[in-house]
Amino acid sequence: MTVRVGVIGGGQLARMMIAPAVELGLDIRVLAEDEGMSAQLAATAVGDYRDLDTVRAFAKDVDVLTFDHEHVPQEVLRALVADGVQVHPGPDALQYAQDKLVMRARLDQLGVPQPDWAAVHDADELQRFIDDHGGGAVVKTPRGGYDGKGVRVVRTAMDAADWFAAAEGDALLAEELVPFTRELAQQIARRPSGEMVAYPVVETVQRDGVCAEAIAPAPGTTERLVQAAEQIARRIAEGVGVTGMLAVELFETDDQRILVNELAMRPHNSGHWSQDGAVTGQFEQHLRAVTDLPLGRAEPRQPWTVMVNILGGPQEGTLADRFASVMTAHPEAKIHTYGKAPRPGRKVGHINVAGEDLDDVVYLARAAATFFA
Amino acid sequence: MTVRVGVIGGGQLARMMIAPAVELGLDIRVLAEDEGMSAQLAATAVGDYRDLDTVRAFAKDVDVLTFDHEHVPQEVLRALVADGVQVHPGPDALQYAQDKLVMRARLDQLGVPQPDWAAVHDADELQRFIDDHGGGAVVKTPRGGYDGKGVRVVRTAMDAADWFAAAEGDALLAEELVPFTRELAQQIARRPSGEMVAYPVVETVQRDGVCAEAIAPAPGTTERLVQAAEQIARRIAEGVGVTGMLAVELFETDDQRILVNELAMRPHNSGHWSQDGAVTGQFEQHLRAVTDLPLGRAEPRQPWTVMVNILGGPQEGTLADRFASVMTAHPEAKIHTYGKAPRPGRKVGHINVAGEDLDDVVYLARAAATFFA
Repeated sequence: MTVRVGVIGGGQLARMMIAPAVELGLDIRVLAEDEGMSAQLAATAVGDYRDLDTVRAFAKDVDVLTFDHEHVPQEVLRALVADGVQVHPGPDALQYAQDKLVMRARLDQLGVPQPDWAAVHDADELQRFIDDHGGGAVVKTPRGGYDGKGVRVVRTAMDAADWFAAAEGDALLAEELVPFTRELAQQIARRPSGEMVAYPVVETVQRDGVCAEAIAPAPGTTERLVQAAEQIARRIAEGVGVTGMLAVELFETDDQRILVNELAMRPHNSGHWSQDGAVTGQFEQHLRAVTDLPLGRAEPRQPWTVMVNILGGPQEGTLADRFASVMTAHPEAKIHTYGKAPRPGRKVGHINVAGEDLDDVVYLARAAATFFA
Repeated sequence: MTVRVGVIGGGQLARMMIAPAVELGLDIRVLAEDEGMSAQLAATAVGDYRDLDTVRAFAKDVDVLTFDHEHVPQEVLRALVADGVQVHPGPDALQYAQDKLVMRARLDQLGVPQPDWAAVHDADELQRFIDDHGGGAVVKTPRGGYDGKGVRVVRTAMDAADWFAAAEGDALLAEELVPFTRELAQQIARRPSGEMVAYPVVETVQRDGVCAEAIAPAPGTTERLVQAAEQIARRIAEGVGVTGMLAVELFETDDQRILVNELAMRPHNSGHWSQDGAVTGQFEQHLRAVTDLPLGRAEPRQPWTVMVNILGGPQEGTLADRFASVMTAHPEAKIHTYGKAPRPGRKVGHINVAGEDLDDVVYLARAAATFFA
């Protein structure tokens, strides 16, 4: 009767699936890494997502399996699929979010615009790439990076010497330093049956490699850019068989091109605005997509929505006190807190503000964020 | 650290507090009447809300106590307050939502416009009231009525003979038959510290004594009516010391007056539109109010929102199938399901549709509702 959705991982993305799951009448169950995680309320199991027996036992009592993160190993995912478990997104799609070298190769095959790149196995190969690309490059560890970790801008191969030593002969990913004017993100939902619904492309602002702000829709876009971003996301979602939410992080270049930076196959920080700003929020849409329910409209409810992340830091007063101060000063702010202990640089919540006038909305969202600076 | 909010009653109103509690970072705990109730996900206890020991044990582990319904007996509420429990709304306020005779007397004291009324102890008294009011009256049992139960239109005292027999000498409430053109509802939130935030007045449409539809804001209102409705709600909320959400059900008369019909001191069916249609939904606002957090803005996000209730009935196919059909035909519809087995006439969910054009929004919401007719 009631569809049981299992979510692997107990972080804030799993937490934010709880609200729409309740309203849609889905039975949401979370396999958390630990007690007291963000998604505690829906946690029905605690254990290691890398352990097949643990995940298998959890999967036994759900109808669909989805994820808070992309770190479940391929061998675990493939064993579950062999067991007959509905896994969304499946391992064939997820590999492109798990390994950036595999992703780059596939995007080339799909003809999707992206930065020049190469797999580099040692300092010599990297130095050649740097020399061929204007004296600089971005080096990435293919696996396990997030929020700026595993990404480094280098001017000489020496800058990545420690990573080559740690990689023990495995390749690193080298990418050209793209002269971009800003970063964008395009989200799209795709059901197993093929239906897709695209969100408006948004502008994201990163600080220290971490998403700080998103403006939806991206201001000052041409119709051509909007179409191009959506077409790229459609080509990727279909090409790699994504189910659930796909986020495509994009660079907009000096010369008006857009190039794919990263992929995420789950709800994504760049889409948090949609919880309050879109007809169908990304967490509801993800649940609809992975359970193969018809997708909801993704249009904005109000002309502009701005999301600002809240990071933990060396702050006076508790987080709860700060939220209360924000509520006093900003009755228009929508607060989403992650139930996490604040540590410097750790995402502990976000705020959405929506309205008619972009300048007002940006001002109000940033003013609310200053309570956490 | 984390504020623990205890909700007595496991129905859909408690269920719909879960989503905003998660986002606000409140620890919501429910004392449910039974296993498998609507608010199951947050249920931490099952027991009888009329039993002081049961409620006291539940209250021991929460910081604030609030309600899914108004049926907790005064003696239980007063014992909790004597224990030092934060109870919102408190017994002094709740008595006016529990007993319609007590409510009518208090509204007279407050100078709030309402239908003519009388406490009638026997058929003779009722007949005199009928004769004095144009040959008809509404008779109500003072306690325990809801959704049209405990309300009867009578033309002669004989029509209420069975109720007088059952009342065993206790008074019934007789009210004049108000010649109303439509029904309205005005909601307001009030914190223990006194802050109040009013919602736009809405139009409600009843069928068979049950709310079928709400249109927010109420179409075709004058500024005078909007002000009058808000002033009535403010006077009542302050006058009886409501904390949390107050709903004032109103009649709009032929001669442009508004009269108070009923009160509810909790989130209310007439405010379900606000989950998707207002900056701050009524369930979030109720939680903010009872925990004495600053209140959020109550303005509509979009010009019009229409809510339609879904009742169980003798339908083919499961409720889940019907929701899937609605999602296919109406990707703009926001679905809220209560996790209840459908029985004829039982509220099992509702749908909100919002947009720019009233006719469109009404049409779409009603079209979505036909999937459940």
